[in-house]
Amino acid sequence: MKIDVNCDMGEGLDEVDAAIMPFITSANIACGAHAGGAEIMTKTIRLAKKHGVAVGAHPGWPDKEGFGRREMSLTADEVETLVFDQINALAGIAKIENITLHHVKPHGALYNQAVKDRVLADAIARAVSRFSRELVLVGLAGSGSVETGAQIGLRVAHEAFPDRHYNPDGTLRSRSEADALLESPEEIAAHAVHLARDGIQFEGRNIKPDTLCLHGDHVHAVENAKLVRAKLEENGIRVVSL
Amino acid sequence: MKIDVNCDMGEGLDEVDAAIMPFITSANIACGAHAGGAEIMTKTIRLAKKHGVAVGAHPGWPDKEGFGRREMSLTADEVETLVFDQINALAGIAKIENITLHHVKPHGALYNQAVKDRVLADAIARAVSRFSRELVLVGLAGSGSVETGAQIGLRVAHEAFPDRHYNPDGTLRSRSEADALLESPEEIAAHAVHLARDGIQFEGRNIKPDTLCLHGDHVHAVENAKLVRAKLEENGIRVVSL
Amino acid sequence: MKIDVNCDMGEGLDEVDAAIMPFITSANIACGAHAGGAEIMTKTIRLAKKHGVAVGAHPGWPDKEGFGRREMSLTADEVETLVFDQINALAGIAKIENITLHHVKPHGALYNQAVKDRVLADAIARAVSRFSRELVLVGLAGSGSVETGAQIGLRVAHEAFPDRHYNPDGTLRSRSEADALLESPEEIAAHAVHLARDGIQFEGRNIKPDTLCLHGDHVHAVENAKLVRAKLEENGIRVVSL
Amino acid sequence: MKIDVNCDMGEGLDEVDAAIMPFITSANIACGAHAGGAEIMTKTIRLAKKHGVAVGAHPGWPDKEGFGRREMSLTADEVETLVFDQINALAGIAKIENITLHHVKPHGALYNQAVKDRVLADAIARAVSRFSRELVLVGLAGSGSVETGAQIGLRVAHEAFPDRHYNPDGTLRSRSEADALLESPEEIAAHAVHLARDGIQFEGRNIKPDTLCLHGDHVHAVENAKLVRAKLEENGIRVVSL
Repeated sequence: MKIDVNCDMGEGLDEVDAAIMPFITSANIACGAHAGGAEIMTKTIRLAKKHGVAVGAHPGWPDKEGFGRREMSLTADEVETLVFDQINALAGIAKIENITLHHVKPHGALYNQAVKDRVLADAIARAVSRFSRELVLVGLAGSGSVETGAQIGLRVAHEAFPDRHYNPDGTLRSRSEADALLESPEEIAAHAVHLARDGIQFEGRNIKPDTLCLHGDHVHAVENAKLVRAKLEENGIRVVSL
Repeated sequence: MKIDVNCDMGEGLDEVDAAIMPFITSANIACGAHAGGAEIMTKTIRLAKKHGVAVGAHPGWPDKEGFGRREMSLTADEVETLVFDQINALAGIAKIENITLHHVKPHGALYNQAVKDRVLADAIARAVSRFSRELVLVGLAGSGSVETGAQIGLRVAHEAFPDRHYNPDGTLRSRSEADALLESPEEIAAHAVHLARDGIQFEGRNIKPDTLCLHGDHVHAVENAKLVRAKLEENGIRVVSL
Repeated sequence: MKIDVNCDMGEGLDEVDAAIMPFITSANIACGAHAGGAEIMTKTIRLAKKHGVAVGAHPGWPDKEGFGRREMSLTADEVETLVFDQINALAGIAKIENITLHHVKPHGALYNQAVKDRVLADAIARAVSRFSRELVLVGLAGSGSVETGAQIGLRVAHEAFPDRHYNPDGTLRSRSEADALLESPEEIAAHAVHLARDGIQFEGRNIKPDTLCLHGDHVHAVENAKLVRAKLEENGIRVVSL
Repeated sequence: MKIDVNCDMGEGLDEVDAAIMPFITSANIACGAHAGGAEIMTKTIRLAKKHGVAVGAHPGWPDKEGFGRREMSLTADEVETLVFDQINALAGIAKIENITLHHVKPHGALYNQAVKDRVLADAIARAVSRFSRELVLVGLAGSGSVETGAQIGLRVAHEAFPDRHYNPDGTLRSRSEADALLESPEEIAAHAVHLARDGIQFEGRNIKPDTLCLHGDHVHAVENAKLVRAKLEENGIRVVSL
């Protein structure tokens, strides 16, 4: 039994990123749209490389003020270009550092809108595919954003969230609700083990996640990372990249 | 013996801000230039109000990508306008929430450049003064940025940094050096008590700080806040706003 | 017979703004969200003041990359805060220059979405009203965005576009269609006279516009402004601010 | 006798870009830092391709609010990364459209700072060279920014400005001075012919420019482009890309 542990990075929390990197296997690096930029991409790629962590692109809506968490409405063509552009930006920096991108995971509102909106999910998958057929597309476990990628022949990864509560239908409880987040590292680590072992029920089907997501802006970000890693391994689940 | 404890907020770390707010007495809220925006200003002001924390403006260079940490060169008039505009932005939101701004503390490169550059420090002080003579201007303890404010008749506050190492001349060790930051909450709390009690030597003069700064992006941000507050009070130092 | 002539300004075209200002009566100044910032607001307000042109706020979605032309989806509360914040920003700068704001005209996608979306139109109107009951709210002639403002007791102005073709229902032909724009200054000036004199049919009702909009990014921007002004006056239509 | 005519594009003036494109031979396309983004890069590349115009990258400081016209201070490494990243962004989009980049021309303050600052000029030249040894580096005629590129073996192009007045030492008169710009298309076209034929005196040496720059935000942008092209050809100067 094995699982990947990923974390969104390059979003402005340099010290936290450095403290979390030893405990994860995949880093999703912001590409300058919702956060980040050339300098922090370079810095974060170097950090990932040092720890043998797989590097992926983390494209989002071009909205630094709203941190990519506000919905935008663009045409499918515009979305395809936007996502391609962000993958290309990170890949360019990665190439300088002799790193090849492993995966692509959309961010925030782009990620969530793609769960419900097949046209958007298609546009994202096409952008990934156009850039490279080697990239793994990461999306919400069980959702249409993962299916869409699989349908056009991309390798895909189902993602689950140890620090988030789920709705009964397998979607995430909205962050605007009071109890969206799990708080203690112990709870979060136990949830991680549960997700890895038992999967989640998405619209009635059981889905085994391929990767678990941690968040650097959680109050206990570093403790969460340490404990999730430790508890997964204690329970015989190997933590390896996708 | 008393001191203020401040923290930079409204910069994208909503959960961390909420966890730190109970332990501080002043919140410096980003004004949409280096970080933040109307929504997060509103949210952070409400949070500060709920905890009885004094609200101040935290203006920075207009550089979200570089988080206001990269040097910019603008004319004195442009800086004055820029700082005025940011204070005004936060004050407008604050007014809706029936809050009056208490202080202004520049951010990042703007703060650091003003330590060395009197023309820049003057422009900042004029912007504050033009907006309101009631605002307290916060700057690096002992530095010209504080002096400049005092000279034009503003109330000023000397600031010290419990989580940062100092150079022998009283300036901060640069973040680009490896050991710029103190790491453990215990060390940081002890440093806070030391700074509050003994002050710092700035260019040979002893300066008693009026306020201590905490950082929400520190790896142990919430622990630091709890422990700094507790240790100050244990040592008989009252923690009150400016 | 009289009409106002307005132009969107402070969006990066400094020389064009300076060349057009003598021919208009209202300047809608970008507030730093879709374009502009503190410096250019100051510069544009001074230019308007010099020419006796009425100054208004031109709030838009916070999207400089897309120039505020891409749709965003925010809650009504978020929109209200966002628009209030932008009016407040311009008003702060205007106050330094001893200028009072006259009007508010939303920009781009915010303007167009409000034509169709009453919840959005309400949020905009509330933001204006909260800032000041003296401000005139400008919207597409005949549309719900104007009606909404009138219903909550704001003074409103119906706007028409001499350089744009209209659909039969009184809405603007989309810029994504090939023939959305009129091209020659002569055509545009004739259209301006026609609009001012005969009004437009919006959903079957005849609406007399209160203000005509010119665009600084039109290929013949300066010629258009000169000729529209001249032709209106030749035809006995006085050009005066709202 | 021959010369290239270039124009900065993809900076938000879509209609003006479309009207100027037929008259130029090189388009410098903004890369999303001081202006532009993925969508407008795509659109502008397609337009250039349609007119057989050579496409180049136009990297600038990451400062949309100041349109890349404000000085920034970054380390040489940061500048190299920043410029590389912007070339890579445009090249990625260009590749989709089956276009190869021809040249790189820095924008605004980055361009002007590089004239005086050899460390900065070196960093820019290294970024170009690292991306591709085939790219032509464009800089102010006679200046160190061109020399630096030549020294590391890049093909370089000396650029002159028909719509700008020059100082006696061959540098451009600052835009903050009242008479920095030539105004009438006739003057500008005559200046273009003069520059192409007689060159400029840069610090006492005569430099023949390889390319002439036009500006889309000039009040007479389209007329300038038409007349410059016509007058160059009338005077027997062939207009061809670099």
